[in-house]
Amino acid sequence: MEKRLSILVSNDDGILADGLAILVKELQSIADVTVVAPDSQQSAVGHAITVHRPLRVKEVKKDGQFFGYAVDGTPADCVKLAIRNLMKANPDIVVSGINHGSNTAISVIYSGTVSAATEGTILGISSFAISLTTFEANADFTYAAKFAKSLALKIAEHGLPKGTLLNVNVPPVPEGDIRGVVITRQGKSVWNDEFESRRDPGNKQYFWLKGEMVELDEEEDIDQRAILNNKISITPIQFDLTNYDMIDKLKAWKISQ
Amino acid sequence: MEKRLSILVSNDDGILADGLAILVKELQSIADVTVVAPDSQQSAVGHAITVHRPLRVKEVKKDGQFFGYAVDGTPADCVKLAIRNLMKANPDIVVSGINHGSNTAISVIYSGTVSAATEGTILGISSFAISLTTFEANADFTYAAKFAKSLALKIAEHGLPKGTLLNVNVPPVPEGDIRGVVITRQGKSVWNDEFESRRDPGNKQYFWLKGEMVELDEEEDIDQRAILNNKISITPIQFDLTNYDMIDKLKAWKISQ
Repeated sequence: MEKRLSILVSNDDGILADGLAILVKELQSIADVTVVAPDSQQSAVGHAITVHRPLRVKEVKKDGQFFGYAVDGTPADCVKLAIRNLMKANPDIVVSGINHGSNTAISVIYSGTVSAATEGTILGISSFAISLTTFEANADFTYAAKFAKSLALKIAEHGLPKGTLLNVNVPPVPEGDIRGVVITRQGKSVWNDEFESRRDPGNKQYFWLKGEMVELDEEEDIDQRAILNNKISITPIQFDLTNYDMIDKLKAWKISQ
Repeated sequence: MEKRLSILVSNDDGILADGLAILVKELQSIADVTVVAPDSQQSAVGHAITVHRPLRVKEVKKDGQFFGYAVDGTPADCVKLAIRNLMKANPDIVVSGINHGSNTAISVIYSGTVSAATEGTILGISSFAISLTTFEANADFTYAAKFAKSLALKIAEHGLPKGTLLNVNVPPVPEGDIRGVVITRQGKSVWNDEFESRRDPGNKQYFWLKGEMVELDEEEDIDQRAILNNKISITPIQFDLTNYDMIDKLKAWKISQ
């Protein structure tokens, strides 16, 4: 008998998020699932970890049953704590999501969802992040969860090379309207963000971030474009940030001490 | 007459940090310097931005003179707010630092110092992060500040390609003991981190992160190795995380919908 898969699930929307619940349920049909997730919404935390204060862990029940561990930290904290302390043995796969909202183009580097999968990868576990690309309140995560399950099986079969994770984005359309899977590159689209200056009731100024993504990519093999074409986007990403092409150019600057 | 350089300085150790003060003083000899930095210590925040609450900005004085803007947010928030709202015109260069502690190998992705420079790069400004690789309380930032100044002039001369920033680490030794500058790659060394489980006075459990970097790199052109050899390390990094080599391999998996 083959050993049953062990999957660690985390996210950045918090342990009570719908996208996590449906993902866990779907993955339980193929694996033992451990849930370690933030106790509150942690969007846009990037790859933050908590070093200046301790972390607290709470066991969370659902329908009278143990569901998972809630941590008062970031997504990366959750995965680190799960693998280093809470789990008896390393999981086979880390899945982060299903995020409520897209993680494409420049958003990848701000993403708490991606950071949980990155932390899994740093700790040597095959990992992926999965996002449903809509902010609609009544988003339907059903198909994205189904896809996560089949991708987890693919990863269990092939493995992922050291230092590489997958960033998956699923368009928010019914299964029948999805037009396939594309292996993509991270897009170059950016936010035209600005801070709205407001006054509080005491007339003191504050700033609130707002903005929209500006589409700068036209090629079909870009994460952001795949979604616009109702295709599932899978981008292989890494945490070696070196720009290798720039090394020789920089040597030519002859920077001296 | 040439236009005087305009430099934005931020960091993750907070607006009152010694490493920032000495950097600002040194850069003022070549540029108009604007300081926008976190109002508190923000180490290991990664590329976090604040989206779920507003930001407050305070003008900070030093010796009776306006020194800069303190923001109750992350390093990336500071740079975004500076460029989008607080500065009348875009700076020529963003410098983040001088960080008190190294930002090499895997630490690059956790680094708030690097994230401030990354945000500058996202917004189209030539940017670099600079760190002094020691946690000693009485660290001497003098030479690192001098080096930052000469590097800023080099960057003003050459410019940096779109999407590329520099991550600079300076060894904590007297100027005379520094053995040159190396253009490096990001190392693969990782933290052997774990969480120490403790009990608070009320006997409730909490977890505190601790650990040391495990040296996994032996090549001389690696950030972490350069520092061990008392050399200044300059790594060109980028925020396109795509693992291009993996794209074709992943296509061969034939992942279907």
